[in-house]
Amino acid sequence: MYLHIQKLINEIATDEPDPGAANALQEGLGGQFGEMRTMMQYLFQSMNFRGDPSSQPYKDLLQAVGTEEISHVELIGTTIARLLDGAPGYTGKPSDPVDKPGAKGATPLSIAKDTGNIHHFLVGAQGALPVDAVGNPWSGSYVYNSGNLVLDLLYNLMLESTGRLQKCRIYEMTDNKAARSTIAYLIVRDQAHENAFAKALESLGVNWGKVLPIPKTNAEAFPEVKKLLDQGLQSVQYTFDAEHASQAAKLYRGASPSGDGTELSTAQMPQGGPPITIAPERREEFAPGLDAELLSLIQATAEIEIEKESS
Amino acid sequence: MYLHIQKLINEIATDEPDPGAANALQEGLGGQFGEMRTMMQYLFQSMNFRGDPSSQPYKDLLQAVGTEEISHVELIGTTIARLLDGAPGYTGKPSDPVDKPGAKGATPLSIAKDTGNIHHFLVGAQGALPVDAVGNPWSGSYVYNSGNLVLDLLYNLMLESTGRLQKCRIYEMTDNKAARSTIAYLIVRDQAHENAFAKALESLGVNWGKVLPIPKTNAEAFPEVKKLLDQGLQSVQYTFDAEHASQAAKLYRGASPSGDGTELSTAQMPQGGPPITIAPERREEFAPGLDAELLSLIQATAEIEIEKESS
Amino acid sequence: MYLHIQKLINEIATDEPDPGAANALQEGLGGQFGEMRTMMQYLFQSMNFRGDPSSQPYKDLLQAVGTEEISHVELIGTTIARLLDGAPGYTGKPSDPVDKPGAKGATPLSIAKDTGNIHHFLVGAQGALPVDAVGNPWSGSYVYNSGNLVLDLLYNLMLESTGRLQKCRIYEMTDNKAARSTIAYLIVRDQAHENAFAKALESLGVNWGKVLPIPKTNAEAFPEVKKLLDQGLQSVQYTFDAEHASQAAKLYRGASPSGDGTELSTAQMPQGGPPITIAPERREEFAPGLDAELLSLIQATAEIEIEKESS
Amino acid sequence: MYLHIQKLINEIATDEPDPGAANALQEGLGGQFGEMRTMMQYLFQSMNFRGDPSSQPYKDLLQAVGTEEISHVELIGTTIARLLDGAPGYTGKPSDPVDKPGAKGATPLSIAKDTGNIHHFLVGAQGALPVDAVGNPWSGSYVYNSGNLVLDLLYNLMLESTGRLQKCRIYEMTDNKAARSTIAYLIVRDQAHENAFAKALESLGVNWGKVLPIPKTNAEAFPEVKKLLDQGLQSVQYTFDAEHASQAAKLYRGASPSGDGTELSTAQMPQGGPPITIAPERREEFAPGLDAELLSLIQATAEIEIEKESS
Amino acid sequence: MYLHIQKLINEIATDEPDPGAANALQEGLGGQFGEMRTMMQYLFQSMNFRGDPSSQPYKDLLQAVGTEEISHVELIGTTIARLLDGAPGYTGKPSDPVDKPGAKGATPLSIAKDTGNIHHFLVGAQGALPVDAVGNPWSGSYVYNSGNLVLDLLYNLMLESTGRLQKCRIYEMTDNKAARSTIAYLIVRDQAHENAFAKALESLGVNWGKVLPIPKTNAEAFPEVKKLLDQGLQSVQYTFDAEHASQAAKLYRGASPSGDGTELSTAQMPQGGPPITIAPERREEFAPGLDAELLSLIQATAEIEIEKESS
Amino acid sequence: MYLHIQKLINEIATDEPDPGAANALQEGLGGQFGEMRTMMQYLFQSMNFRGDPSSQPYKDLLQAVGTEEISHVELIGTTIARLLDGAPGYTGKPSDPVDKPGAKGATPLSIAKDTGNIHHFLVGAQGALPVDAVGNPWSGSYVYNSGNLVLDLLYNLMLESTGRLQKCRIYEMTDNKAARSTIAYLIVRDQAHENAFAKALESLGVNWGKVLPIPKTNAEAFPEVKKLLDQGLQSVQYTFDAEHASQAAKLYRGASPSGDGTELSTAQMPQGGPPITIAPERREEFAPGLDAELLSLIQATAEIEIEKESS
Repeated sequence: MYLHIQKLINEIATDEPDPGAANALQEGLGGQFGEMRTMMQYLFQSMNFRGDPSSQPYKDLLQAVGTEEISHVELIGTTIARLLDGAPGYTGKPSDPVDKPGAKGATPLSIAKDTGNIHHFLVGAQGALPVDAVGNPWSGSYVYNSGNLVLDLLYNLMLESTGRLQKCRIYEMTDNKAARSTIAYLIVRDQAHENAFAKALESLGVNWGKVLPIPKTNAEAFPEVKKLLDQGLQSVQYTFDAEHASQAAKLYRGASPSGDGTELSTAQMPQGGPPITIAPERREEFAPGLDAELLSLIQATAEIEIEKESS
Repeated sequence: MYLHIQKLINEIATDEPDPGAANALQEGLGGQFGEMRTMMQYLFQSMNFRGDPSSQPYKDLLQAVGTEEISHVELIGTTIARLLDGAPGYTGKPSDPVDKPGAKGATPLSIAKDTGNIHHFLVGAQGALPVDAVGNPWSGSYVYNSGNLVLDLLYNLMLESTGRLQKCRIYEMTDNKAARSTIAYLIVRDQAHENAFAKALESLGVNWGKVLPIPKTNAEAFPEVKKLLDQGLQSVQYTFDAEHASQAAKLYRGASPSGDGTELSTAQMPQGGPPITIAPERREEFAPGLDAELLSLIQATAEIEIEKESS
Repeated sequence: MYLHIQKLINEIATDEPDPGAANALQEGLGGQFGEMRTMMQYLFQSMNFRGDPSSQPYKDLLQAVGTEEISHVELIGTTIARLLDGAPGYTGKPSDPVDKPGAKGATPLSIAKDTGNIHHFLVGAQGALPVDAVGNPWSGSYVYNSGNLVLDLLYNLMLESTGRLQKCRIYEMTDNKAARSTIAYLIVRDQAHENAFAKALESLGVNWGKVLPIPKTNAEAFPEVKKLLDQGLQSVQYTFDAEHASQAAKLYRGASPSGDGTELSTAQMPQGGPPITIAPERREEFAPGLDAELLSLIQATAEIEIEKESS
Repeated sequence: MYLHIQKLINEIATDEPDPGAANALQEGLGGQFGEMRTMMQYLFQSMNFRGDPSSQPYKDLLQAVGTEEISHVELIGTTIARLLDGAPGYTGKPSDPVDKPGAKGATPLSIAKDTGNIHHFLVGAQGALPVDAVGNPWSGSYVYNSGNLVLDLLYNLMLESTGRLQKCRIYEMTDNKAARSTIAYLIVRDQAHENAFAKALESLGVNWGKVLPIPKTNAEAFPEVKKLLDQGLQSVQYTFDAEHASQAAKLYRGASPSGDGTELSTAQMPQGGPPITIAPERREEFAPGLDAELLSLIQATAEIEIEKESS
Repeated sequence: MYLHIQKLINEIATDEPDPGAANALQEGLGGQFGEMRTMMQYLFQSMNFRGDPSSQPYKDLLQAVGTEEISHVELIGTTIARLLDGAPGYTGKPSDPVDKPGAKGATPLSIAKDTGNIHHFLVGAQGALPVDAVGNPWSGSYVYNSGNLVLDLLYNLMLESTGRLQKCRIYEMTDNKAARSTIAYLIVRDQAHENAFAKALESLGVNWGKVLPIPKTNAEAFPEVKKLLDQGLQSVQYTFDAEHASQAAKLYRGASPSGDGTELSTAQMPQGGPPITIAPERREEFAPGLDAELLSLIQATAEIEIEKESS
Repeated sequence: MYLHIQKLINEIATDEPDPGAANALQEGLGGQFGEMRTMMQYLFQSMNFRGDPSSQPYKDLLQAVGTEEISHVELIGTTIARLLDGAPGYTGKPSDPVDKPGAKGATPLSIAKDTGNIHHFLVGAQGALPVDAVGNPWSGSYVYNSGNLVLDLLYNLMLESTGRLQKCRIYEMTDNKAARSTIAYLIVRDQAHENAFAKALESLGVNWGKVLPIPKTNAEAFPEVKKLLDQGLQSVQYTFDAEHASQAAKLYRGASPSGDGTELSTAQMPQGGPPITIAPERREEFAPGLDAELLSLIQATAEIEIEKESS
């Protein structure tokens, strides 16, 4: 069973809209090695987990990382939506007729034809989509869950490393601050997850030598990443277990397999986190598309007094 | 941000393995109108939500139902795994050679060739898959999020009703108790969600007359369903909000649009819920596939004493 | 612009429901070489047609065959629906509780789990689906329209021949009379279309020698087919042009390329044709799913007197 | 059974080629909410329709709208082909060598690499494709046909409204007159269809209040749309029934659910309609790709005298 | 550049047709972890390989294994075709009318409706298809080629292990000798390839401890497998390099990572290999579908004397 | 069984990187009518071939062309990789920090956002992908193998002609010399294969008149093509049979069906062929991504002395 908190797992920096960067980030959301995939893969692996009762720490580690990935979907999706918001340079103010031409006579959504994914404007209303950076919809065939523990761990290690590799490449595609703040955070968290699965394989006798982390790069060359590494964010794993029952800490402990001299440790969840807000109306998208009459009905609902839910 | 609790949202009744029923239930998990889809659709709609600040109750309602759907994925996935577990009638005991012929000389996994989805045995290890009942992988193209509030609500109402329709049909395909306990629960929760979206549209002026619920059937003819309806489970919506910040109760209140004479109300989360357990090893699937040496390493991990996570 | 007539293009023989045969026929409806594909391929080729004004007969031939294929979709779809109707052996009478067990205690839709495509009962309500015989949805990537006239004709000839080959194979999979009446009709019409494209290539100088028809088989070994061949149905092409403007007859004339000694000729449309009817309600599918109250509203609509439409 | 008339259902305005606009329009042709989908969805719903004989008006309404959609496929497909025709700025005259460089030394088809969908030039010959605006092929999985009457009507209402929403967005992406003439026409016809399904649900007791039409926008702010609204085109539904047997008028009557003060009425088919023509040869596409020898064979065919078809 | 030899890489045992086993084997041919995928993945990785010139042995190892996989596609495809050949129990002799009913009046291809994949009989002519065991077509999205050497090797190790796991499961699904002879061979060759990629990672410092091979099972419990292991087939890698230029032996040497006490070694190619033959005609499939006249033309071609090709 | 030679089948001319051209060439590699498809189609047709023993020349012809297509995959894939290599204009020298801004402050991979397929930089490391020019992954559903000899040959003729048509269009999209050298070569080889299948149909009595080759164009207007035609490369077919056992020459002989006055002949394989080389490291892609420590391990491997493989 799952609970939600109305906070993002990390702050998104403020910068200009940038539909091209938004599209590159789609790979990190809906791509074959993106957050929707890691989330689903680990939730299925935890759900279908088989083993001796003593293997609880392995199941709990999968559940912990899987639960975190739901929050990553929320974070990267929100980042994409912000990068798209207002992108066409159309003010969208009530005083603007929907069909008023913009600069050089451009129609309000003309930018959509030349941007990364026209569906961001045509199918969605300048929001994130469950697709990758070339528009392929996310597919259930991505999920790997063989049931064989060693194989599942090996795949997960490769998966996190590939996600980290792709995000390092996306980092080099844009210098938009909003995009980079989320990418940098996910690069570091992917390393934390690499550590999780590498450590689980270490517990079965594998010695990784010097090959980790993958990519074998000083990601600290990326300033936003370095800042988070200095905080040790790559070496902590949250359990996200509301009742503190998780045994993931039996695995996620000791020297980091990344060979960076840190010790791994666990915590329940990150503190702070910015509140989730509502994105502004965009009239050129007919989103939410309410006229004055319907809006007043909504406002009436908002004014209702409610008693606290009873449980 | 999300938290997890190591409990299922509802109890699964005990019955014999039944791969055919398991496959029918896959439609409810990974089908076009199944739980993975409702989950993703509402999480995207909440993430990309646009509007006047007064529209918070609408966003919160989407988030509440979306969070519940993650728990439904967990429930129906676990049900499928149990229906498959041990299906081949192969004992899987250590004393059994993996290649020992079964009844009538059948090989250990020969059942796989004639069951609903051979992948349950060949690709997974008798566990749930992110596919529908004919094996199509779940697709991101299922997610509908136009950004137009009326349209999104209308689609969601239709989506929940279709989910409920399909589950009523699945109910009639099997009398396996494990399958029916989960199907019945989801039929009733789908009606609760029908009520949610119908009510939101009522707040915008629509009068549903007598058409709800859809399907327009006395699902109370199904005994397992009737029992839950008598408890009023179709008229409560949980917020699953760990900090009680949700305003969904401003919408989910008043007379039920289903016309059954109940009043709608909200609560944070259901109480009770059975603990999640680990499924047994299945040697014929090489799952988890550990030999004595690797198993002893796992047991060593399990014996480690850990301090409570620090947060 | 298109018009519809409430008649089927050919009579469907009466026989028992047969879900297995229905599923085999799906290949002829939604398969890569089925009627949805021929329909779409020729409509796109006609729409995008390029050439000298003298090439009108080629465009008109494509349009004529393409229009016929819409009626074939209607015919084979209706045949599939009839083969499925009532398949579970559940009477569906108002006196039957939806959950009443059938023979040997079978639940009303238990047959669905073991039939060709469970979606026929779970997603549709015992009706045709736009998928092939293994459940793949029809895909726009099937449509071939290179714009090169010789290539398009060559592909179309191959397409019709493959359709005919597959239908000959389906014929051998079932002896259900309803299924065979439609398959036999389509085998003969596919040959008529083979003739159309072969003839168009003859007009460009190709000599087919003895290779036609493909498959090179005496389909007259199939009694239902022989009856139609004796009527010469393989050597007539309808224009389906409501205003008799088509020039297809300039191509569809002279000796048949099939080498059966017949002369090709055209006509506007087949005569006769059985009226299209409404399939009965199936309560176990909640289709149409009306209760007494909603049914009375429908009946009130049916009793309205209308004046003839004014055009 | 279907007939064809060699006229388009609406006039396409003349303007410059515009591959970007052509690509945006592909969403309206082959997208998830485009004309191929509405066409197939209603034809399947009519084909598989179940009910009491009194439900004939509902089936006939589905058939009427479905038949109209085939003409919409023809209209929007032809519009796309015209927007692409000659797009590369290569004259294609016989005096032009196929490999002669164009302006700034550009190769004849160099534009293809930077336009919306390279397949328009590489796979097709500057003609429409059965794909959406990001190149996804149309899929049979789009078709919704649950068999439950209320659900099918509710889906159809949402489908038409989404189609209208997307076309309003496309309208704002381009001011090409050819594109806008077709988009404006389809925006209005989608509203007519919204009215059809909303009215059918009204007959079952639903009261839509003020939520229709969706999007809740004064599309009359779009001049091309306003002109058609002033003619009342949003409040008439054609039956396209060649034998005037349709009972759709029993539903499509009375006050418009759009609340615009008009009365709904039916007619057999629109009058006028421009003749369908043949698109010119494009040598750089090898379409139709005939040399002098083959062209003379075609011209010989065109000169054949034929007698009127005999029926 | 590639050459072909008209021999299979391994002998296929003789046994009865078995369409169910044939379908299970399709996973090994066209599945996500089957031979078409390993083949394509390694050929792409070799083609796109980047590195210092000293990395030649790594590229050559990929090319060696990739080339072997083409022969595995040939082997498993031929095995499937033999398992299907004649499956319907229809003799197919010239004296048999195509439509002659079989045992219990069964039509010649009636078995197709109840077998693993109806396309084996309906689309193919009792031959292998490029699909998996639930009919999903092979997809280019399976191919993994990140360009990062450690990741590519890690993925390949996981891929071979998963292939081996799935083949062990298929082994337990059937005791058909033809099926098992090919499965057993591929289980052992997959282990040879596991060794290849594990060894390449060892050269970069990884120590696998006791986790290999995966699955961690004594596959020698399978008699056909044991026989091949006793020959050491799991510890040799062929280069398939026609000019003996491959440097794969620099990596594929020393103690086996599988920990079975063997030493790894290379060879150019396996010796022996049964000749490839032509499958018999199947008249009920119209394959090859020649009548007497066409057959005599083919025989005339076969009698032509040719001089040796000149190179 | 297959062997490999470390040479390309044709020389690739040297020119600047050009990601747009690389993307257009993807259609020729992974498109519906590209080299991966011809390769797989002919290998399946040869593998599943049925017939009288006298039909050996037909099987051998399929095998010969199919084997050649593997080398074409290698050639066009390598060409794409070279067109992408270094495309971002980032030097990638060790002295370049990975995050150093380029011209106008562009980030190292910023070009990826505006190029044909962002996956070339994000998922691959500037290498070829198994997708078409709009990013659709290659699909097993492309493979056609009906088992009916005439149909398979007819399809193959159409397939080669369509491949040639598309390559002629790609030729007109770019004047990059590397791209054109490979396209020109494949245009001519496609004609050689057109001749192969046309000739096989001639042996069954078809007379092609003047319709071949398709497209009916003087491709000799393309200078790179003309040069190869003058060498007669369109009229020779290689058997690629390592043991000279192929009987393809019994079919591939006599006057060319293209009507160009040449005589068809066969040879074992082309002579010469440039050696295959290793592409340079690209640090901005982390490919191969080795640090100094790992690189030294690789170099140690490269220095090992090996004995010749023993076979």
